[in-house]
This record gives sequence, structure tokens and C-alpha cells, in this order.
Amino acid sequence: MIVHNETSTGITSDLYGVRKVLDSTNHPALLLVDIVSSLGTTDYRHDEWGVDVAICGSQKGLMLPPGLGFNAISEKAMITSRNSQFKKYYWSWEQILELNKKGFYPYTPASGLLVGLDESLDMLQEEGLESIFKRHDDYSNATRIALNHWGLENYCKDADQYSQSVTAILIPDGHDADQLRATILEKFDMSLGTGLGKLKGKVFRIGHLGDLNELTLLGTLAGVEMGLELCGVPHNKGGVQQAMNFFTSL
Amino acid sequence: MIVHNETSTGITSDLYGVRKVLDSTNHPALLLVDIVSSLGTTDYRHDEWGVDVAICGSQKGLMLPPGLGFNAISEKAMITSRNSQFKKYYWSWEQILELNKKGFYPYTPASGLLVGLDESLDMLQEEGLESIFKRHDDYSNATRIALNHWGLENYCKDADQYSQSVTAILIPDGHDADQLRATILEKFDMSLGTGLGKLKGKVFRIGHLGDLNELTLLGTLAGVEMGLELCGVPHNKGGVQQAMNFFTSL
Amino acid sequence: MIVHNETSTGITSDLYGVRKVLDSTNHPALLLVDIVSSLGTTDYRHDEWGVDVAICGSQKGLMLPPGLGFNAISEKAMITSRNSQFKKYYWSWEQILELNKKGFYPYTPASGLLVGLDESLDMLQEEGLESIFKRHDDYSNATRIALNHWGLENYCKDADQYSQSVTAILIPDGHDADQLRATILEKFDMSLGTGLGKLKGKVFRIGHLGDLNELTLLGTLAGVEMGLELCGVPHNKGGVQQAMNFFTSL
Amino acid sequence: MIVHNETSTGITSDLYGVRKVLDSTNHPALLLVDIVSSLGTTDYRHDEWGVDVAICGSQKGLMLPPGLGFNAISEKAMITSRNSQFKKYYWSWEQILELNKKGFYPYTPASGLLVGLDESLDMLQEEGLESIFKRHDDYSNATRIALNHWGLENYCKDADQYSQSVTAILIPDGHDADQLRATILEKFDMSLGTGLGKLKGKVFRIGHLGDLNELTLLGTLAGVEMGLELCGVPHNKGGVQQAMNFFTSL
Repeated sequence: MIVHNETSTGITSDLYGVRKVLDSTNHPALLLVDIVSSLGTTDYRHDEWGVDVAICGSQKGLMLPPGLGFNAISEKAMITSRNSQFKKYYWSWEQILELNKKGFYPYTPASGLLVGLDESLDMLQEEGLESIFKRHDDYSNATRIALNHWGLENYCKDADQYSQSVTAILIPDGHDADQLRATILEKFDMSLGTGLGKLKGKVFRIGHLGDLNELTLLGTLAGVEMGLELCGVPHNKGGVQQAMNFFTSL
Repeated sequence: MIVHNETSTGITSDLYGVRKVLDSTNHPALLLVDIVSSLGTTDYRHDEWGVDVAICGSQKGLMLPPGLGFNAISEKAMITSRNSQFKKYYWSWEQILELNKKGFYPYTPASGLLVGLDESLDMLQEEGLESIFKRHDDYSNATRIALNHWGLENYCKDADQYSQSVTAILIPDGHDADQLRATILEKFDMSLGTGLGKLKGKVFRIGHLGDLNELTLLGTLAGVEMGLELCGVPHNKGGVQQAMNFFTSL
Repeated sequence: MIVHNETSTGITSDLYGVRKVLDSTNHPALLLVDIVSSLGTTDYRHDEWGVDVAICGSQKGLMLPPGLGFNAISEKAMITSRNSQFKKYYWSWEQILELNKKGFYPYTPASGLLVGLDESLDMLQEEGLESIFKRHDDYSNATRIALNHWGLENYCKDADQYSQSVTAILIPDGHDADQLRATILEKFDMSLGTGLGKLKGKVFRIGHLGDLNELTLLGTLAGVEMGLELCGVPHNKGGVQQAMNFFTSL
Repeated sequence: MIVHNETSTGITSDLYGVRKVLDSTNHPALLLVDIVSSLGTTDYRHDEWGVDVAICGSQKGLMLPPGLGFNAISEKAMITSRNSQFKKYYWSWEQILELNKKGFYPYTPASGLLVGLDESLDMLQEEGLESIFKRHDDYSNATRIALNHWGLENYCKDADQYSQSVTAILIPDGHDADQLRATILEKFDMSLGTGLGKLKGKVFRIGHLGDLNELTLLGTLAGVEMGLELCGVPHNKGGVQQAMNFFTSL
């Protein structure tokens, strides 16, 4: 099991690399991946990369409110599930797939979100995946340009693993990321992601995915830069300006 | 008849001054004012300033879609209207006021917007008028700080008449404001106001009223500054930064 | 000037007949028609019937909230308007038509309703006008079958002028239509149309147009029949049953 | 584990009776109940009846789209859960309850539905539970009066167990309930509940709960009665009339 884009750390994993390692060992394990925060922001190739089960939700790159979860399933995973002796009912795919053929679902679906999904998919098709991935790459680049200028540190150290969906930023020792977040929320009505688990108080996260554009992102970066100033977190002013320069240079 | 805040030029008129001049001449004329783009952004005192008829709409400071128009009417205006020999039916206040008492309207009202208005008024009451006017003053200040830094010119020359709702900015000779607007719309999906009438092509307008905050405005200013760069309009970079400095200094 | 379907009385006028009379007199007058409550319920042929100006709104057969008004204009009406010496600005078509070509409107349009209109028109096209007119004819037939069974009287006496949009029903002497309406509103949360002007208290109106179907209409008729019972208005029970029989016989 | 109101059969169980039997045996088992389709339609007393865990959703008596699930938990259930050696993470209450105190939830909640829930609860409080239960009792009574008149059979045989939320109706031998449902859907755009499992084709279900009133229900019953006619299912006409008589007699 592996997370494609880890929302809590802003790190994207090399799924295809994992697949190749698995293949090299001839291990029969299924490859399960969480693509909740990468679908619609980052290139993902279910069949080509030999993923067995992908797990996703509606609330990130699909630009919908939370409330839908769904899977993509390989032939191998279907067979394994059918042959498995584990008890399952609600989580069983058989009945769902059978009813899906006729446009139904065995339980009560979140019908409002399905109507929204229809529209989201039209929007994504209209723009085209290549443009969508390019935009998210630009947004994440602009975010890193700003944080580098501020002199802050990206929690993700490996450029190959930078996330196109979210960036987690370390706050200097002696400062509290949650205090920064609270100030920005109170002053500018913007809610940034908190650090989770052992990162609590040490990082804050900027989501740059889904229904946003350059100006939304620049407003976001402006909120962060002003928050750093108001909280006395040492930084170099001008990160927003650098991000603007990046966008006009494209 | 006078416009309180002129949307097309970003100029706010001294209504009370006009009232005093009228009073000094003992002229019986009614004072009619258009407060469409000032209500909910700028201090306005219907009774205290002796306004006879105020004309307003839903789509600016009241934060609603367009579709509602309404009046505030002085006793003197009511009497004048009643005694007037002009034919009127649809524009007559009598029947409207009579039915309003019971919560009705003589024709088919835009009922959806009335429900929205109920919520808008709650929001405005909850924040308080003093805070609302202060915020809009801050937004307009930040906008002027940016345009001054860019080296562009405010169409409004008199600081006493700066608008808290909208700022019209002159573009240097040899450049076309509508070309700038088109570039910003295409690149950043932001639609700025056009110059109207003889200002066509010479000014563009930034609305800074209603449902927005500091970050929305900074995103807007970033879009303008990047547009100036992309269109080759001479300007000093850093206007957004100056606006940010202003907001953190408050 | 003539109303195609009079909402207050449930009477549909023979527009083409009026046109022919006008033609027979060789009178140059323009023919102006109000199609607010007939468009989308009743056959209307602007060009074929030689109408010069049609006036309509969004809130009836177009199934939208109130808030849009619009015209269809003949060549003759355009020329007359252009040559007219009457002062006009807001009501002038010239500027509107010019800007409409590029998808704009000279003032602030009720943009939310325009998005809704796009959907309404798709729905109407998908069903087809023939089916839409047939359905509204069925609804009005079912309504008349019920009121005839109740022993009440249609305000419209001439079967050629029955409205496909709304039926106005006379209440027997000694009873108050508005008392009936109030009882139905309180007991069953259904708001029927009131009698207007000299019909006040004498008629109530059932709208059977727009976003409704057989079951909505039967629920409506059930509310009326139960209201008659509760208010002690003499009537024969079974009007809803007769309307049901009509629908199953189609 | 027991279902308070069984949606698939229209049978309401005597939860308090079950509680008393459990108590009489001094068995330590927890009492878990599904109140998905009874909450907001049927009297339910979590503490008084000694229920340990209630399971509910947003899409029935709470009048919302599907998408929220929630529990009410007794002290005993909390202790049992805490002491249990079963592995659990997503289904664990501890973290949820801890974060709920501050208005949060450990995962991504269906935030749009929580806003809707706020409004639903206001509506339910405003009407009062006594009135809500009385209304649903009336609706179910009216439905049974109609089906009895039609000469059809309620799947629930025991009057003490009639559901206030939904009624499952047996179709006579030789007829197919799903054919009836399909006809009603096609002709009158009304989707009735299907028979589930071994009841497939043998029953159809009428939901009479949530956001509806007398007229909605009568429209529903009219659709069923007309469907019976169109499908040639033997029945006595007049069921809707009997339901109307019942409502006017209240």
C-alpha cells in the first residue's frame, strides 16, 4: 500500500518505481495506492503502472465537496477479492459493479455529488489532462519559489518528490506553525493546513490544487507572507513578487 | 440628481455639501441620489443629509446577484409624488408601500434575491457599519498605494473624492486599457471594469467592494501588475508588496 | 396592445384574429402583445402572426425565478422606434441589440438567471414544443374537469379562450375566495392566486404551467377540494378522481 | 442489533420491548439500533430506552441529501469500545469525540451537509417533535386508508408495527410490482421503492417521511392509483378520495 501524494507532508511517491521493484521480486502482492490528492493534479497511469487498486475521493482535484469515495480495480484485484475468504459485505465490489452497469448503486448514494461529478469531469475533459498537470506544476513551482525567497524550508527534501498538490513548509525553531495559522485565519480569513502527528506546530501546508488559479494562489501566498510578518517569523520579504515574476516569465 | 459614488470614474461626491448649497438657495427641488455602488461601502445618512430619494440595487455592497432595485423616500418626496400630475403606474410608490406593509409587492418580485437580502443584511448587521466602512477605506487605500507605486495615475484627482468602492486607473498614452483588460482576462481569468464613454480604452477599473477581503484584493492587484508586465505598460514593480506592507501596518 | 394569456382571468386571446382585423382596416398601428404567461405553454407564432413587439418574463413557462424581462421585435417596430421622437434611454432597443451581438448588455444583467435560462431552453428543446403545448392543454383540461365536477364555474365562459396556463374559478355567492385561499395556505401550505381588482374575493386561480407534472397538479386539485370541504363551500366530491380518470384515459 | 424502522418492509420494531427482554435475562450484550429511517418521523428515546448505540444518516427524516452518518453512544458502549481488543482506526470513536469538542472531525467531513444539518435541526426544533411525529402518523394512516380501499395488502400484518416512515404494499399474484413501478416512473416521473431480496417484484414501497406534506402525499397516492389502472392491477378506485376524507376529518 502506498500513497501517491501524501497530503500531510507534500511528498509524491514514485508509484511506477515501486511497481518495478515489486515485479523484480516476483512477489504476488497487490499494489494498492491512495490517489485522493493526486487525481486531477498529477499524472497517474493506473493500467500502465500496473496498479491493482486505486482509492480516491471527490474533494481534491475533482473540485467537489467531500462525500464521494471510489476505486479503480485491476483484473487481478477482482480475482483476489472474489477468491478471498475474508468476510465482506459493505466493502464488497461485486454487487456495486453489477448494479453500476445499470447506473445504480446498492446503497443510498450521495446523489448530489454525482451530479456535481458529471460537471467536474466535463470541465477536466474540456481543459485536457496535459494542461491540468502543467498548471498544477506551475502552482507548486510558484509556491516553492516564494518559500525559498522567504528563506523557509520545504519539508520535502527531494526535488523528484515535490508535490503538485500541496506544499508543507517548516517553520524556524522557536516559532509555532499553529500560531501562524491562527493569526492568518483571524486576520485574513484563510485556513491553512496544520501539521499532523509529529509535525504538529512544526509545519503549515499550502494546498495548490483543484478549483484555483494564479491569482487565488498569489492571494494565498500574500496571506502567508503577511502572516509571517505579523507573527515575527524571520523571512525575506518579496516571495509573492518572485512568484509573480515566475508567472509572467511562463 | 447626483450620484453618490460614480462607478464609472471612482469618484465619490459630497452629498451633504450639495444639500447645504440647495438649502442656502431655498430652492424647493427634491434631492435625488444614486447610492447603488456606495451603500454598504461608504457612510451614507439618508435622513441626516436631507436626501429625498435614494436609488439602490442589490449587486454591490449588498453582496447579491443583480436583480433588486429599491428606493428610500423622504416625506417631502412622497407628498410631491402624490401631488404630481405626471402619469405613473409601474413607477408609483403608493401601491408598493401599501402592499409592503403586509410583506407583499404589487408585481412579481425577484423572490430568490429577497431571501438572499435577508442573509446579507444579517451579515452586515453582525459586522457593524463602522467596521464595514473602515474595511472598504482600507481596500481603496491599498489599491491607491499600489497604483502610485506602479507610477500610474488615479482618474480621480481630488483626495476628498476618492471612492471606497472602485478605483479608475488611467493607462499611459500609447497603451490601450482594453487590451490590458483582455490580456488579464485571458491569462488570469479576471474581468476588470472597462472605461465607459469617452474614457473607453483610457482607464480600467478595480472594484474593491462587497464580498471580498485583503487576500482577494491582493490577488486582484497581482493580476493587474502581471498584466502591466505582459502588455509592456511602463510601471514600477512592487505595487502588490506595498499594498501588503500597508495591510500589515494596520 | 393585447395580452395573449391573461394571468388574472385565465383567458387566452386570439392574437391572429386581432392581427387579421388590423390588417383588414389597413391601420398602421403596431401590434404589441404580452406573452408573459403563455410562452412555453401555448402555441405562439411571432412572425407568422405578424406581431410587432412581444413582451415576456422568465418566471412562468420558462420555469425560472422572476427577474428577466425581454422582447421580440419586428422589423417594422424597430424602424418605428428608430424614427420615433419620444425620448428614451433605458427602454431603447438600439444599444441593447448592438451589445447583444457580442454577448453583452448595456446595464448590469441578472446574470444568475441567464445561466438558468440556458438550462431552461435546453430542457424545452429536448422535450419539443409540441409535447409541451400538449401537456399544458392536458393540465388545463384536467383542471376544468375537476371544477365542473365540483359544480364550480370557470370565470372564462368561452371554450375557445380557455387558458392552458391558469384557470380562474368563481366561488359561489356568500363565500369568500380569499378565505378559502387562506385556509388552504394554512392547512396545506399551498398558495393559490388571488382575484385581482374587481374579482377580489370572487375568484381563486390555479396555475398549471411550467415546472409541474400530472402528480403535482393532482396534489394541487386535492388541496382545493379539501379546502372547499373545510370552508363549507358547496361542491360535489370527486373532482380529483375525475381528473385522474382523465389522465389514465389519455 | 435491531432496526427501528425497516425501510425495506415498512415494519417498526418495539425497541423498548427488546430492551426489557434483554434486561430480564441480565445479558451484558450492548443494544445497537439502526434509526436511519425513523429519526425525525417516529418517537425514539435513546437514554430512556437504554439503547447503547444508535446508527443514523442524513437522508430521511432529517430532510438532507445522503452523505452523513452518525452515532449516539451510551456510557456502557464507550467503555466497551475502549476495552475492546478489536483493531479499529477509522471506526474508532475516541478521536472523533475528542475533536468534536472543538468543532472538528479527524477526517474530511461532508461540510456542505453539516451546514444543511444546521438548518434541518432548526426546522425540526421550530415545528416541535410532537407535531412531527403526529404528521408522520397521519401520513402513514392516509396511505393505509388508500391501500385498504384499493383492496391491496400491507406487507406489515401487525398494526402495532406499522411504520410511520414507509409502507410496503403487496401486489396481487400474477402482477409484477417492478412493472408497476416502471410504468409510474415513465408516465408520471415518480420513483417508488422496489422490493428488496425475496420481496423483489412482490412489493412496492411508498415513502411518507421527511420533506413532504398532505398534498405531496396525495399526489403520490394519485400516481399509484393511476398506475394500478394503467397496469390492469385489480383495485377499487377511490383510494385518494378516502385519504382526502381522512385529512379533512382531522
